[in-house]
Amino acid sequence: MLRAILARTEPASRAILGPGDDAAVVAAPSASVVATTDTLVHGPDFRLAWSSGYDLGWKSAAVNLADVAAMGAAPTALLVALAVPRDTRLSFVTSMADGFRDACAALAPGCSVVGGDLTVSEVLMVAVTALGDLGGRAAVTRSGARPGDVIALAGELGAAAAGLGLLFGRFRDGERPVPVDRALLEGPQLRALDAQLRPAPPVGLGVMAAVAGATAMMDVSDGLALDAARLAESSGVSIRFDGAAIDRVAFGGDRRRALSGGEDHGLLAAFPADVLPPGFHALGAVVAREGDGVLVDGAPVSHEGWDPYRDWDGVVAG
Amino acid sequence: MLRAILARTEPASRAILGPGDDAAVVAAPSASVVATTDTLVHGPDFRLAWSSGYDLGWKSAAVNLADVAAMGAAPTALLVALAVPRDTRLSFVTSMADGFRDACAALAPGCSVVGGDLTVSEVLMVAVTALGDLGGRAAVTRSGARPGDVIALAGELGAAAAGLGLLFGRFRDGERPVPVDRALLEGPQLRALDAQLRPAPPVGLGVMAAVAGATAMMDVSDGLALDAARLAESSGVSIRFDGAAIDRVAFGGDRRRALSGGEDHGLLAAFPADVLPPGFHALGAVVAREGDGVLVDGAPVSHEGWDPYRDWDGVVAG
Repeated sequence: MLRAILARTEPASRAILGPGDDAAVVAAPSASVVATTDTLVHGPDFRLAWSSGYDLGWKSAAVNLADVAAMGAAPTALLVALAVPRDTRLSFVTSMADGFRDACAALAPGCSVVGGDLTVSEVLMVAVTALGDLGGRAAVTRSGARPGDVIALAGELGAAAAGLGLLFGRFRDGERPVPVDRALLEGPQLRALDAQLRPAPPVGLGVMAAVAGATAMMDVSDGLALDAARLAESSGVSIRFDGAAIDRVAFGGDRRRALSGGEDHGLLAAFPADVLPPGFHALGAVVAREGDGVLVDGAPVSHEGWDPYRDWDGVVAG
Repeated sequence: MLRAILARTEPASRAILGPGDDAAVVAAPSASVVATTDTLVHGPDFRLAWSSGYDLGWKSAAVNLADVAAMGAAPTALLVALAVPRDTRLSFVTSMADGFRDACAALAPGCSVVGGDLTVSEVLMVAVTALGDLGGRAAVTRSGARPGDVIALAGELGAAAAGLGLLFGRFRDGERPVPVDRALLEGPQLRALDAQLRPAPPVGLGVMAAVAGATAMMDVSDGLALDAARLAESSGVSIRFDGAAIDRVAFGGDRRRALSGGEDHGLLAAFPADVLPPGFHALGAVVAREGDGVLVDGAPVSHEGWDPYRDWDGVVAG
């Protein structure tokens, strides 16, 4: 059955040996491989009333492709570990496979599913590992931003959070999620819904940014304030944002949601002052480390980003 | 918290960039990377009454390292996607990290955990992706065995199944698993228990077999009969086993369990007739395809191996 699912994915241009053996073999022309893994679990990360199998396949591919892009690498392959309840319909799983295939085709042509594992579990869970190639360049880490750099973003901020707000606000019966009726939504709302359920991070711009000379880069998945603070901390710098510039990339012009809303998967990058590749919007400047890592119009912002483990850490440590 | 766990793993000799950024970067000196993923889910795949966190970390590493070895590659890195219930103790997770570290050190020196993802789930689940390097050689697939080759095994058969039998037979209270009291077990029983809970596949022999000229190789995880049938099918050959030779690598001399018992993770390989590297035991011969893919002392054997999805396939397809 696993083979039948994998057969739905496109022939892999970077796969030397695809599914069907003990392991896949993927080209790594740079003699190094970028690797990342991210998991979506039913309940905390998605609800089947809101996400179709296709959506789930697409999103679990997209969030991993964004992490590869954030290193300045081109995605080459996905491996999918899928745990599904025993009564799952085959059509649901094949729809997921279609979502993987289409997300790769749309966001990272040449990348495909090269391997996987199918397990039975009481809780639906999909763990994706994405591999990528750096094309001979060094990886663009979070730690290379220097005072004098421009800080810039590819993508939009707050749209995925707005979409989550719509789901919780409009498509629930008490505590129970109910299926989305898209006819009830208008243009910008549909865009927010898609940003949440079927995100389209600017994967191709990761390589463009690296080639252009990005000094630091990361995927913005936990809100601009928290993620920028991480980049500032790693680089030993502070980041001074221009509030009006944030407003221009904020979904609906909502600055607060842009700073704190998660799951947008845009690319935040620092560039030398005279560099700004197409697709990136300047949001401010990297400066020498001050007391606060992140400032908007000169005022410090709390790291009010979305960190699902922040509360939970206290529980398990106690 | 995830960073604290990853910090417990050994410094990675093959990791150019380890945990802490959007993705890891792993050396791939052969300009290709071997990649495989395998998942363990609480319930179907392990029980916490029987497996410690350390056992679980060890086993989930070991089964993936075996798949890399079965391609003739040396494991270079693991990525760990861990989904745990909200009330999981931190000490359990750090014990898992110790299990990962020690399995890598024991079975695949130079390999380590380079990345991971920690999620909350109602069901404990660990999905591991292992990467490996072929050292410039072609991958050893399942499809290259030729008539005239010797078929050989590194490892033991049936021990893991014997261990599972002990757990179900001796450490249950009704349907409920109860903790294992090792003092109740004798030498061979302890060895069977370890084969089930903390397997030690012959990972290093995968590269040795490839260098020696193995024409086909695979990890024996679903019993010799079923896995040999897969290799025979892929290669378009039949495999004639010598029953007495199987008995010599069968745990407790039990041929039936050797043929059908799963989770041993030995390496089944075909070699040119004059080649048999140290650690491999000749079990028979590869012959031109006959009606049956697998024969023992000339008689066909049913593929009575352990395939957890065989029954389940029917359910979801229906």
